[in-house]
Amino acid sequence: MKIPISYQIKYLTFSEDKSFILESGESFGPITVAYETFGNLNKEKSNAILVIHALTGDTHCSSCEDIIGETPGWWDIVVGKGKAIDTNKYFVICTNCFGGCMGTTGPSSINPETNKPYGTKFPLFTVRDMINVQKAVVDHLGIEKLKCVVGGSFAGMQTLEWSIAYPDRIEKAIVIASAARTSPFIVGFGEVGRNAIMSDPDFKDGDYGDTPPIRGLSIARMLAHITYLSRDSIEAKFGRDIRENIADAERLYGYFGPIFEVESYLRYQGKKFTERFDTNSYLYLTKVMDLYELTRGTNDLTINLFGVKAKMLIISFESDWHFRPIESYEIVKAMMKLGKEISYVNINTPYGHDSFLLNNPMMCAVISSFLLN
Amino acid sequence: MKIPISYQIKYLTFSEDKSFILESGESFGPITVAYETFGNLNKEKSNAILVIHALTGDTHCSSCEDIIGETPGWWDIVVGKGKAIDTNKYFVICTNCFGGCMGTTGPSSINPETNKPYGTKFPLFTVRDMINVQKAVVDHLGIEKLKCVVGGSFAGMQTLEWSIAYPDRIEKAIVIASAARTSPFIVGFGEVGRNAIMSDPDFKDGDYGDTPPIRGLSIARMLAHITYLSRDSIEAKFGRDIRENIADAERLYGYFGPIFEVESYLRYQGKKFTERFDTNSYLYLTKVMDLYELTRGTNDLTINLFGVKAKMLIISFESDWHFRPIESYEIVKAMMKLGKEISYVNINTPYGHDSFLLNNPMMCAVISSFLLN
Repeated sequence: MKIPISYQIKYLTFSEDKSFILESGESFGPITVAYETFGNLNKEKSNAILVIHALTGDTHCSSCEDIIGETPGWWDIVVGKGKAIDTNKYFVICTNCFGGCMGTTGPSSINPETNKPYGTKFPLFTVRDMINVQKAVVDHLGIEKLKCVVGGSFAGMQTLEWSIAYPDRIEKAIVIASAARTSPFIVGFGEVGRNAIMSDPDFKDGDYGDTPPIRGLSIARMLAHITYLSRDSIEAKFGRDIRENIADAERLYGYFGPIFEVESYLRYQGKKFTERFDTNSYLYLTKVMDLYELTRGTNDLTINLFGVKAKMLIISFESDWHFRPIESYEIVKAMMKLGKEISYVNINTPYGHDSFLLNNPMMCAVISSFLLN
Repeated sequence: MKIPISYQIKYLTFSEDKSFILESGESFGPITVAYETFGNLNKEKSNAILVIHALTGDTHCSSCEDIIGETPGWWDIVVGKGKAIDTNKYFVICTNCFGGCMGTTGPSSINPETNKPYGTKFPLFTVRDMINVQKAVVDHLGIEKLKCVVGGSFAGMQTLEWSIAYPDRIEKAIVIASAARTSPFIVGFGEVGRNAIMSDPDFKDGDYGDTPPIRGLSIARMLAHITYLSRDSIEAKFGRDIRENIADAERLYGYFGPIFEVESYLRYQGKKFTERFDTNSYLYLTKVMDLYELTRGTNDLTINLFGVKAKMLIISFESDWHFRPIESYEIVKAMMKLGKEISYVNINTPYGHDSFLLNNPMMCAVISSFLLN
């Protein structure tokens, strides 16, 4: 990963002695975590907020601390000076996730024992393992209790996991466009994507070196990207518009490639993704997400949410068909049944699952207000 | 294609002199059409019904005429003795579509001029061309006016095209689970599938000979298959059930392949499809479907439906998200606006787009009644 000169990532390395125990029981180390911080930690260390990135994100959730130039943060709409998560007041921590490829140890990291990338020899891990790696940074910074943990989509699952794993370490939790588990419908799309990657001859069982299976990875991303949008937003944005450079009917019908703007757009999204993301990381993270179950195989959310102490805010989006509002509401119902402090907002945006990454005054107002109260 | 011994396909060959003019203006021939007939044509030749198969179907819509043994017909629930389309009363014709691979001339056919399969040198064609090839069979059988044309999904588009192209040649039309055009959302999935096929090194620009790009074709089909089901039916059928033979958590997390039953099922569907369908046919037909527009680029359905004379029945399914009920209803509204004879039924089944292929007493009753009145 190339880090833009506008910001600096900090690194924490730990478990050199392999003292970090994964949920599978395996010992693993060393682990390096890449993270950024925004704003200042107060004396009482009581104003820290952990912002977790979604599936393929990175540490740069905000550009508010950028030094030379400015690289957009993936959540600039929410995190920054005077924003909903106000870095004038709060100290924001954003780590790259375990298993990722944006600075934190993952499948593309060099295994010190072999001097080669781990590839698919990277250990098995879970959402619990991912938050334990985040917790190592929180501990390192000497923060006893986080003001809030917040995350959208896959990061919402990690936020839920924080709330059940470390109830005394977090005051509030904000779970956005997420679910207690991925529905089999969405798992199906994930499997098609993984199959595309593993079917690419360049995959080579994960030992692809400098020539990753970009065809397969691109296809997986194109497909995933559709599930992040909504049918109506695709209709509104592209309709059945034809690409400008292939106007004549003759060429249209003889050509199996992208003819419509929507096709061309998806190809572009797929290609762009291959330039920034590691294939093995993608396989691990999508699989970890698909396998996650807050309930650990039971169907009763109240069992696992029983120990939650954090005040929780759940936000869903009406047009989100990746994680539907009803999947958020299931968690809300369980929290209410348990008499926990729970707030729920379903926002009527047309932009599908990606809504949480887009400018949305309602979402910002709700987050801001929840943090104050 | 291997024809089971239980039934016999008839063949009509025409345009040996290339007198068949495609919508593109190109002359093409020879064309062989594979077809089957069921029941008997009456003296007046007034009881013929053309049943059109969907994207990847064949001529065998019914097993009612099978001789030795019985090979299930793809629409046995609707077509046969005493069924909604009663072969004791009606003479049913079912042709394999132009560009297909089940007996009718298509990309896998041998080009007599080169003695090689056409592959991607097969001409450009449209839905209009497809129905013109069907019409050649109807003409050959001496049928002046069809009692009815009926088709689901892509075949619904062909049925609509019949009603605008040959208003005097059909008495009734039944359009099921279809639309006047494919939405950009669904086109997006189609593009991902085609990209998977064309990215497979075995594709070789369509000249794959005996080693077709089965990885790519399988991925395209897995994805398409999801769009034929409904989210709820997937949830009900598979939930988050894990495959029996990979029970232990350790193996789960180290394995990127299909773990859930739904994943395994999709892989099976993909693989099975590659054993029966030609890749180039799939590319041509999906592209022809995605490019189809009843309105020819205008947004006003009434312009093109103006000349329709057939009584029309439109059936949609509530859980169909491939071609949604609202897309059927747009056609209904236009027909009503024009004062045409139109019946519309939206059926509340949970099985998604594939509902039209599954047993459904309501659908059968509606079809049967529409044909009688």
